[in-house]
Order: sequence, then structure tokens, then C-alpha cells
Amino acid sequence: MLSLSDVRAARDRIGDSAVRTPIEYSHTFSEFTGAEVYLKCEQFQRTGAFKIRGATNRIATLPEADREAGVVTASAGNHAQGVALAATRAGVDATIVMPEHAPISKVKATEGYGGRVVLHGADYSEAQARAHELEREEGRFYLHAFDDEDVMAGQGTIGLEIVEDVPDVDTVVVPIGGGGLISGIATAVKGLDPDVRVVGVQAEGASSVADSLKKGEIVEREGVDTIADGIAVSRVGERTFPVIRERVDEVVTVSDPEIAMAITYLLERSKMLAEGAGAAALAATLEGKFEVGEGECIVPLVCGGNIDPNVLTTVLMRGLIRSGRYLRIRTVLKDRPGTLLELTDVIASNRANIYAIQHDRTARDIGMGSAEVELDLETRGHDHVEAVIEAMEAHGYPVEVLV
Amino acid sequence: MLSLSDVRAARDRIGDSAVRTPIEYSHTFSEFTGAEVYLKCEQFQRTGAFKIRGATNRIATLPEADREAGVVTASAGNHAQGVALAATRAGVDATIVMPEHAPISKVKATEGYGGRVVLHGADYSEAQARAHELEREEGRFYLHAFDDEDVMAGQGTIGLEIVEDVPDVDTVVVPIGGGGLISGIATAVKGLDPDVRVVGVQAEGASSVADSLKKGEIVEREGVDTIADGIAVSRVGERTFPVIRERVDEVVTVSDPEIAMAITYLLERSKMLAEGAGAAALAATLEGKFEVGEGECIVPLVCGGNIDPNVLTTVLMRGLIRSGRYLRIRTVLKDRPGTLLELTDVIASNRANIYAIQHDRTARDIGMGSAEVELDLETRGHDHVEAVIEAMEAHGYPVEVLV
Repeated sequence: MLSLSDVRAARDRIGDSAVRTPIEYSHTFSEFTGAEVYLKCEQFQRTGAFKIRGATNRIATLPEADREAGVVTASAGNHAQGVALAATRAGVDATIVMPEHAPISKVKATEGYGGRVVLHGADYSEAQARAHELEREEGRFYLHAFDDEDVMAGQGTIGLEIVEDVPDVDTVVVPIGGGGLISGIATAVKGLDPDVRVVGVQAEGASSVADSLKKGEIVEREGVDTIADGIAVSRVGERTFPVIRERVDEVVTVSDPEIAMAITYLLERSKMLAEGAGAAALAATLEGKFEVGEGECIVPLVCGGNIDPNVLTTVLMRGLIRSGRYLRIRTVLKDRPGTLLELTDVIASNRANIYAIQHDRTARDIGMGSAEVELDLETRGHDHVEAVIEAMEAHGYPVEVLV
Repeated sequence: MLSLSDVRAARDRIGDSAVRTPIEYSHTFSEFTGAEVYLKCEQFQRTGAFKIRGATNRIATLPEADREAGVVTASAGNHAQGVALAATRAGVDATIVMPEHAPISKVKATEGYGGRVVLHGADYSEAQARAHELEREEGRFYLHAFDDEDVMAGQGTIGLEIVEDVPDVDTVVVPIGGGGLISGIATAVKGLDPDVRVVGVQAEGASSVADSLKKGEIVEREGVDTIADGIAVSRVGERTFPVIRERVDEVVTVSDPEIAMAITYLLERSKMLAEGAGAAALAATLEGKFEVGEGECIVPLVCGGNIDPNVLTTVLMRGLIRSGRYLRIRTVLKDRPGTLLELTDVIASNRANIYAIQHDRTARDIGMGSAEVELDLETRGHDHVEAVIEAMEAHGYPVEVLV
């Protein structure tokens, strides 16, 4: 089984190829939880995620024949970029198979790091099948995203940094997809200090490890469904699972809305970007998914920041809605001059700001003399939302809340 | 005139009340420019911006009578939060007058830091007038946002940190609104090393300092218009202008689209959030607004990260459009079964992803048997945009580019 000395050896091999990412104390999240919260900011890693660590260590340990033949892998995400950059630096040829509809930003980033991208298949498993074909056809080494001890050891170097930079750490919180990251970190952390608690976090829609731990054996999920695409894995690894079972104290799950809220908090409060998987550990911390003692020193790992801008805008909007700071409503007004002015006056006197108005005179399901209005409003919180709605209704405007 | 020793004294007074913010090397921006670019990340400061430094120093130097009477100021932005937190910590009562339609997030944040917020007036100058009334009525000390030597000295502590953390620095790039920040930083930097170049950056729509330097005397702008609300100031300070004239080597301007692009780059590449003013210095660096030598060591200051989420989503969308990664088009198709499928097939075979489709059969300006379709597409860049449009036109679909 993976050992602390494997992780230490990985660190020596990785050297300066990976950034020692900062660990930042968070006033905000410490106040929220009553704990002392430090964020390990792996989104500031090269390629925007931790994967470069494991890929660099794996490539450094390849026999010469494999280095010459090159590596191949399948990934729609951060592993693609990590392998591309690690291989390019080591002078090793890398082919990455990505599903045909992979986000264009990730394709471009992977090519930018020097990887050859092959677009193939409708989903990850079809891409993976093609990658295994290339493994055979071209004699390439298949570089697995997580189920490989050298990859696990590379990711584990994060654990060394956490314990060295925050020697008082009580609990480390780590997201889990296939388990490569947490098995490395748990090995490092428990190896240095067995009293540190390691909590794993999965997305509710991709809870393969939580399910497997309950059952006592590896369970494969039928499918995965989460905005945290970085941890959307249907089956934990054969090599990672035993390490998790032995060294991880607890595995909890978080919902997509909880993850979205954590992304929003990280941006608004900490001014840093996280992807879904990157915000999962903080989400679990903030939502009380595991017990937190007063003044306990907690380090949630923000494992990556490669979020699609389109997903980000959706998340931001939902975060605002959830905290009562954004309201979209529909109402009906008599279609005569001045009624829209009257309506906006009711809203302004209740101090809601209007982002957008859509005024539709042609909607079919209301009376001929009326017009439908959709309003996007900035509000101050849930109480304010209620006050605005009450005021509108008191003035005779029916209110339908759209989001 | 402000001196290096004033800035040093400010640092002693501020102590741990302000965070020593990180300076991060940027691979991406170094590659873009051929220079060595380090970002000074003041958005990670408490309150999300540098203002806490100046406010803390100003309050620390108040005579006892003023401390007892309390302070008052007017601000719609970061200065409000900086004063609120600095005053609360010093046990001094603070009233902040904000315009009635100030962003709710900033009102809440200011109250959260312990400030009393008075909402008054339609704009900043009306709020300011009310603040001066409170100064007289309640005998409070009016804490100016920039035109005050103790405030300038406090902001200047950033300059000490830059020179200490990056001793090889050649050029420091600093945004300018009223000039408090840059006059402090230029004093510190030039005091420590007269050879370091200090470049100031203004928004084109708020170029009071650039205009004043050209004229040789202070010029007040008729109005200001920029997304960088943190530097949207119509008149430079009486105390800051002479310092800028003497110690700042160059003042350049950037447009709103250039600022928006820099915000997008900071998020996508550096995984960090900046507000408009916070991205201005990087925008000037990336857009070649001043001469940059090969390998020159440049430190653009990211001065704050308090951006309205609604502004942020707009900026993100525009950034995508500008780089050819987002395309909204309108086309017309015969309203018979299967045509929409045919259209989406043309798009898919050109590897553009469809974000959204709006299909409208009732648009008035097209023939009865036709239907209008609006498409939101993810594209790979400008070449790809052209290829998609050409393919659609080749299949007989007229294309109108909407954004």
C-alpha cells in the first residue's frame, strides 16, 4: 500500500515542476463556522488544478522505453492538461483523447500545453476506449487519471505542504472522484501525524466511494450527475479504495446547490475562482456535513479552478437567487399609459433595483386590455423579497415568482 | 510633500490590521508580454481592497477629540468598507453616507464591518453633501477617500511590500482615481529606489489626471463613465496631484473593453477575481499602453476585487464574445418538420456547441411559412466563427450576427 516515503519521493521528483500553492487563512469562513479555516489554493497550480503533480511523478518514473513510445490518456478535464504539460516538460510525447463535445476551452488549453488532442466519441467511456486502442496500436503507456500509485503519490505532495504550512491542522477536507487525490493526501497527512482527521467529500450525484464504503466493497454507480465535473466518476479505483478505507476518517456528500453556493462564496468573499470539484470541500465544511469543534483548525482543499464561463455565470445567478439577492417575477398590468411607471415606482419606493424589464403585450393567456411584465430585480435578502412582493400585491399587481 | 518616512510610519501604525498581500508570478502574463510579470494581489486584502490601509492610518493619527466624536465619510464603494472596518477596530464610531441606489452588497458589507450606513441622495455628490452636513451637525471628522496625507501614506505601504518582495522590480503599474493610492506608492517606491518606473493607469472615461497632466493644472471632468467604478473620479486631489506630477513617470488610459478583457483573463488564467479598477493596471500592461522591455520585471497592482456579480456576468459574456468563443446569431428557416434538426446538424458537424435556441414562429417581419431562430453558440475563436457562418450560408440559412 502507498506509503509516506512514496509521497516524499514523489516530491523530490516533481521539484519545481509544480508550484507550492499558497494556504490562506479565511476570516469569512472562520466566522461562518467558528473554526479556524485555511484554504489550500490548488487552483493557483499550473494548469489550474492539482493533476500536474501526479502526472509529473508518473512520467518521471516511466522506464525509458515508455518515455520514448509516449503516453496516452483519456480525459475531458484537468487530467488532460496536467498530462500534456508534464509530458511536454519531460520531452515525452502525449496524446490525449477527449470526447468530441469536450469544452473548447479545455481542448485549447491542452493543445497549448503541447499535447496532441484526439477528439473521439460521444462521452468519456468512448474516448477512453479509443485511448486504450492507441495504447495498443502505438505502444503508448496509458497514464491513468487516478488508479496508479505514482499518480496517487504525486497528488499526495499536497498533504506534505498542508502539514508543513499549518502544523496545527486538525482536519483536512478533500474532494473525491476516483480517489487518487485523497488517497495520496491521506497517506501523507496520516504518515506525518496520525491524529489529523481526513474527511472526504463527494458530489451527491457521484457518490461512488460513499456507496462503496457503506457496502464494504466497490460499487459502480449507474451514472453520474453533478456540476462538479472534476469528481464525476462512477467507480472508485481498485488501488485507491483500500487506501481510502484505511486512512480516510469520514466520507460525506454535498448537493449541487451547496457546491454552487460555495463557488459563489469563494468568489465574493475570497476573490478566488473554484470549479465545482474545487468548491466541494468548502461546501461540506460550511454546510456542517461533518462535526466541527470550536476553534478547530480545518483545511479544505480547493483542488482546481477550471470552470466553464457559462457554468460560472449560471452558478453566480443561482447563488444570488438562493440568498434572496436576485428575483425574477411576472406580473400583469392594465395596458394603458402610465401603469408601467406606477409599477416601477412601487418597486423603487421599496428600494429594489431593476436589472431588466420585459414588457409583452401579446401573451396569449391574459386579457386583451392587459400586458404581461417580467421583472429582474436586485434585492437585499429573503425578507426584502417578501416585502417587495407584498407591496406589489397591496397595489393590486399579481406576482408570480419565476426564480 | 509626502515622504518615505511618512509611509514607513504608516506601516508601523497599521501593523497587522492590514494583510501583507501576496505577490504572484504569472506564467501566462509573462508569456503574453515577454516581460516578467508579478501580480500584487490586493484583492485578497481584508474588505477586498486596499482602502483599509489608508483608513487605518488616518484613524490612528486622529486626535483624541476626533476619535471620540467619530468619523464620517461618503462612498459608494471600497472606501466605505475600509473606513467601517478600520473604525470598528479602533473603537471609533463611523457613519458612511452612500447614495440611495448603492449596490446592496456594498451596503451590507459596510454594515457588516460595523459602520452605520446612511442612504442619501441620487448620486455620490449628494451623498457627499450629506456627509459634510453630518460633519458639521455631529462634529465628526470627515475622512477623505484620497486627498489626505495620512490616507496616501497608508496606501503607500503597498509600495514598500512590492519593493521588498520583488527587489528586481523595474516597473510598478498602479490604477488612478483620485490619486491617493498612486501618490503613496510612488513615494514609497521612488524613496526606496529612484530607478523604478511608476506608471499610472486611468479609465478613458475618467481620465482626470491624464487630462490635468497635459494641461499642467488640475482639470475637472464634466462626468465620468467607466465600468471601473473604483476609479471613476472626476477630479484629482489637491494634495495628490503634485505628488503624481513629481513622482509618476507616465499616466496612460485604458478603455472599458480592455478592462473587461483583463478581468476575464485574471479569472480564467489566474483564477482570481478583480473589479474594474483592479484589472486596469493589468489591462494597460497587456495592451502595450507603455513600453515594455524584454525580460523587464513588471508589477501591476490588482487593487481590489469587489465587483457586482451582475457586472461580472456581463463582463464574462463580453469577454467570450470578443475572443470569438461565444456567438449569438439569428437565422430563418422554413417552418416545416425537420428543418430545425437539419440546421442543428450543420452546426454540430462544424463542431460548434449550442448553448441555447429560441425558436419563434410569430415574428412579424418574416414570411408566413417561415420561422425565426436565435442561436447561442460556443465557438473556438474568430476563425471558427467565420467557418460556422459560412457553412450555414452555404446550406441556405441567412445569418445575422447579433453579438
